[in-house]
Amino acid sequence: MAAALEEARKGYQAGGIPIGSVLVYQGKVIGRGHNKRVQQGSAILHGEMDALENAGRQPAAVYKDCTIYTTLSPCPMCSGTILLYGIPRVVVGENRTFMGEEELLKARGVTITVVNDEACYNLMQQFIKEKPALWNEDIGV
Amino acid sequence: MAAALEEARKGYQAGGIPIGSVLVYQGKVIGRGHNKRVQQGSAILHGEMDALENAGRQPAAVYKDCTIYTTLSPCPMCSGTILLYGIPRVVVGENRTFMGEEELLKARGVTITVVNDEACYNLMQQFIKEKPALWNEDIGV
Repeated sequence: MAAALEEARKGYQAGGIPIGSVLVYQGKVIGRGHNKRVQQGSAILHGEMDALENAGRQPAAVYKDCTIYTTLSPCPMCSGTILLYGIPRVVVGENRTFMGEEELLKARGVTITVVNDEACYNLMQQFIKEKPALWNEDIGV
Repeated sequence: MAAALEEARKGYQAGGIPIGSVLVYQGKVIGRGHNKRVQQGSAILHGEMDALENAGRQPAAVYKDCTIYTTLSPCPMCSGTILLYGIPRVVVGENRTFMGEEELLKARGVTITVVNDEACYNLMQQFIKEKPALWNEDIGV
């Protein structure tokens, strides 16, 4: 989670939406990323998507033994991607700011661990206070 | 659907996975794309994702009045993205090759129209016969 939060802070420092993610395979980070809506004008590069993209094309067997860490509860897009690749474990920094598709993931057999990290929460709260319109755009509101 | 199929054929000609998509807002195509797994080494650029990315950052009000056309039934990732942005209508070329998350989309109020287009189906069948491993990789198998 420390690495995901580091990614989120990188995003914040670049004027972006501070959500970060890392993909871990057998104890090693194979992909890391953060939301690039602002930085790349992207509609699809949420933190988790950027981490998965940066991990490159992986065989199914790799995804099925991965854990994805994300500073914020995964939205429908990121949750769908987790389901597509059969990633079995998701560790969520916090879900007070935004509750993603945790119930859908659980219903499909994904293990969700929410760590309630104060630093993840505070970073998002600070960002939303500063740029509420950007946050709404990112979650399709 | 003709424009989505044209995108799929572009992908096929480039050695890629032949799935195409267009995003239509008030009768005008605002984004078009095709699967770029091979061409860009991408794990996330399915046809629908590429079309949405190429449409750029749009306000929520635009997505909520869009129809997305895709030559193949949308996988969990693309379906999740449709839900994230609240795209209300999906037109599917075919779902015989692959049945995506149509039931989930319908349960969330999305209108799905399957046109059973033979050209979409034949293109995918030809591709899967030629490159089965690539197809499996794309759907996380």
